[in-house]
Amino acid sequence: MARGNLLYAQSGGVTAVINATAAAVIHAARSHHVKVLAARNGILGALREELIDTSHESAASIRALAHTPGGAFGSCRYKLKAPEVDRAPYERLIAVFRAHDIHGFLYNGGNDSADTALKLSKIAAEFGYPLTCVGVPKTVDNDLEVTDCCPGFASAAKYTAVSVREAALDVAAMADTSTKVFVYEAMGRHAGWLAAAAGMAGHGPDQAPHLILFPERVFDETDFLARVQAIVARVGYCVVVASEGVRGPDGRFLAEAGTVDSFGHAQLGGVAPHLAQIVKEKLGVKVHWTVPDYLQRSARHIASATDLKHALAVGRAAVNYALAGRNAVMAVIVRTADSPYRWKIAPAPLADLANREKKLPAHFVREDGHGITAAARRYFAPLLRGQAPPPYGRDGMPRYVALKNRPVGKCLPAWQA
Amino acid sequence: MARGNLLYAQSGGVTAVINATAAAVIHAARSHHVKVLAARNGILGALREELIDTSHESAASIRALAHTPGGAFGSCRYKLKAPEVDRAPYERLIAVFRAHDIHGFLYNGGNDSADTALKLSKIAAEFGYPLTCVGVPKTVDNDLEVTDCCPGFASAAKYTAVSVREAALDVAAMADTSTKVFVYEAMGRHAGWLAAAAGMAGHGPDQAPHLILFPERVFDETDFLARVQAIVARVGYCVVVASEGVRGPDGRFLAEAGTVDSFGHAQLGGVAPHLAQIVKEKLGVKVHWTVPDYLQRSARHIASATDLKHALAVGRAAVNYALAGRNAVMAVIVRTADSPYRWKIAPAPLADLANREKKLPAHFVREDGHGITAAARRYFAPLLRGQAPPPYGRDGMPRYVALKNRPVGKCLPAWQA
Repeated sequence: MARGNLLYAQSGGVTAVINATAAAVIHAARSHHVKVLAARNGILGALREELIDTSHESAASIRALAHTPGGAFGSCRYKLKAPEVDRAPYERLIAVFRAHDIHGFLYNGGNDSADTALKLSKIAAEFGYPLTCVGVPKTVDNDLEVTDCCPGFASAAKYTAVSVREAALDVAAMADTSTKVFVYEAMGRHAGWLAAAAGMAGHGPDQAPHLILFPERVFDETDFLARVQAIVARVGYCVVVASEGVRGPDGRFLAEAGTVDSFGHAQLGGVAPHLAQIVKEKLGVKVHWTVPDYLQRSARHIASATDLKHALAVGRAAVNYALAGRNAVMAVIVRTADSPYRWKIAPAPLADLANREKKLPAHFVREDGHGITAAARRYFAPLLRGQAPPPYGRDGMPRYVALKNRPVGKCLPAWQA
Repeated sequence: MARGNLLYAQSGGVTAVINATAAAVIHAARSHHVKVLAARNGILGALREELIDTSHESAASIRALAHTPGGAFGSCRYKLKAPEVDRAPYERLIAVFRAHDIHGFLYNGGNDSADTALKLSKIAAEFGYPLTCVGVPKTVDNDLEVTDCCPGFASAAKYTAVSVREAALDVAAMADTSTKVFVYEAMGRHAGWLAAAAGMAGHGPDQAPHLILFPERVFDETDFLARVQAIVARVGYCVVVASEGVRGPDGRFLAEAGTVDSFGHAQLGGVAPHLAQIVKEKLGVKVHWTVPDYLQRSARHIASATDLKHALAVGRAAVNYALAGRNAVMAVIVRTADSPYRWKIAPAPLADLANREKKLPAHFVREDGHGITAAARRYFAPLLRGQAPPPYGRDGMPRYVALKNRPVGKCLPAWQA
């Protein structure tokens, strides 16, 4: 890239390890004497000229950032329209970059962000503005093409598998006189990666989870109830893992399937409470359910060591690609062997990832449609492997860092969306 | 106690560390060459003569038991009526104990179990049957009198505080364009101990949790919404921790407050989705919520080291009390200093704990009714202190043990309830 500053921005839902990527970016850039500016609240901060000068953060803070969940500079859900529709935001970004001597842009996100980074790199070329755009992968949904996995996913997967195993031991102990069916709701609106990871909690037909409901399969209530009933009869209890994205035969999300409050308003979703309700009504057994929601993607305390290594490696590689002027690529994870697990980081064209979605492969789903295969286990095991606990204080709490986030002075007029 | 076997039974909801108590009981008894029988599914196993001979378990299995959550022999929700109402179960228990040479009974549970153990010891005395009954404390609700805390609580408390801090970092990162209010539902139907523990997640008015709703305080919807709105305006987002036991002015649980499904049936509870619904409707901001449910009481992976030490110590002490013939006592935890934290185990009369409930002390609740005080922090900090992770396997999963649970042959007629 041309001599100047690097801009780093986080995009979309944050994860347990996205800040590890940020820490690696800052650390690597410092070793090359390059300043990293961070956009406050993702691309919106770049548009609003709300930039953070990370050079005020101490080395100790940057080290601590690597074990702090959330998004240290803020992220956002904001998708730029195509430049053919609205060119103004792209031009504004170039203006901000020019004003702050930014010639490298690292965008840490999913397939939307890859698309934005790609478009921005094209506009910059049209303007003749020297800019190297590099994508850095992140998403608990694990739905990016090309990369073997996405940093953030493996830690959420480990949280899911460990939580399901632990809760299943609780249910097993109490089933004789208490809860017989337990429903766990996993994130993943369009792809069943996290629901599948729950399969790592047990082995064989009698160990939990007994039934996984994938968003890739149509939910059949009669079949579901028959399976639950048979499992309760055989095992004594049944643990169900349901993806939030499960849909009925009408194509609607189960989570939207018509629960209303006392005023008749549609109730906030939750596929787990919905399934629990069906089981309670139709089978008449005691049911409990959980919706971990954000806990599953922020649980840094149970992060996978493999995930942490990936998150750091993509950050370092992205800086190297930017400095080497490798434009419009993403730093992706390439698996070269399952056992012993081997992987490397490689650059992939952003165009191969932008706006594409990787579903759970069909051969990861057991023939009956409700569990995972040996191939899935070979894929998941190395990702979940290894612990990477944060340091803890005397109050028993993790020592997560809050950065100073000192703003860079603005020099442009305010941005009008 | 008279020479013979010890019977160990688990009662009520299980915890992340109740099996550590079981492991300590078995280990201590073995060192005195006393056999431990375990009741399958708690007191029901004793009534049904479904006993497990723990002497078939290897020393390695018993060590692994100390880091395995759930209830290894099964527990139950089953309360014996008073002997004045129904004497038969007590007589049956004496018959089972006599048949299996049981002269010590260790009952690992809460205040109900203390009551049962006390009554049983009186009946045994009436029969002239030599029996030493010892209570062993356990409950994530932390609502037992006399003991400073209950094994199982501190690990659930640590889970709660860590989860709230992690989710709050996620919400903070996204609040600009996404979720502005997050509601976390904590267990504790009658006492706000776990909700209060969430207060350890942050310090000062701007750190999460911003609002704690205790079951000891009446919920006021107008006041709640005004507080949430003010916090969102000031901080940018608001994290609410609500006890499942929060009640409205009519005395009804909010979790039962009238959500119905599409058939008009009352929906399975959840105070968090209920509050989320109110916030969404009345304030019009994006809301997310979580109900961790059993995850919070089975999360052995984030167990507190202090809790584990307590759980082991009460198990060891209970065996010693039984062998010394100290009848009708519970092994309780006595705190002798906050800082440095010092504690010991002492015997307390079961009569002082039976059927009594310890509420959260008023001086633990901040003046505004929605946070915790410095006194509460002094109480919680040493309980949450220290990590005690289980060992993990190559698949990234904790190595939890499944015992053989070999049954003892029956010699009595089947029990008719």
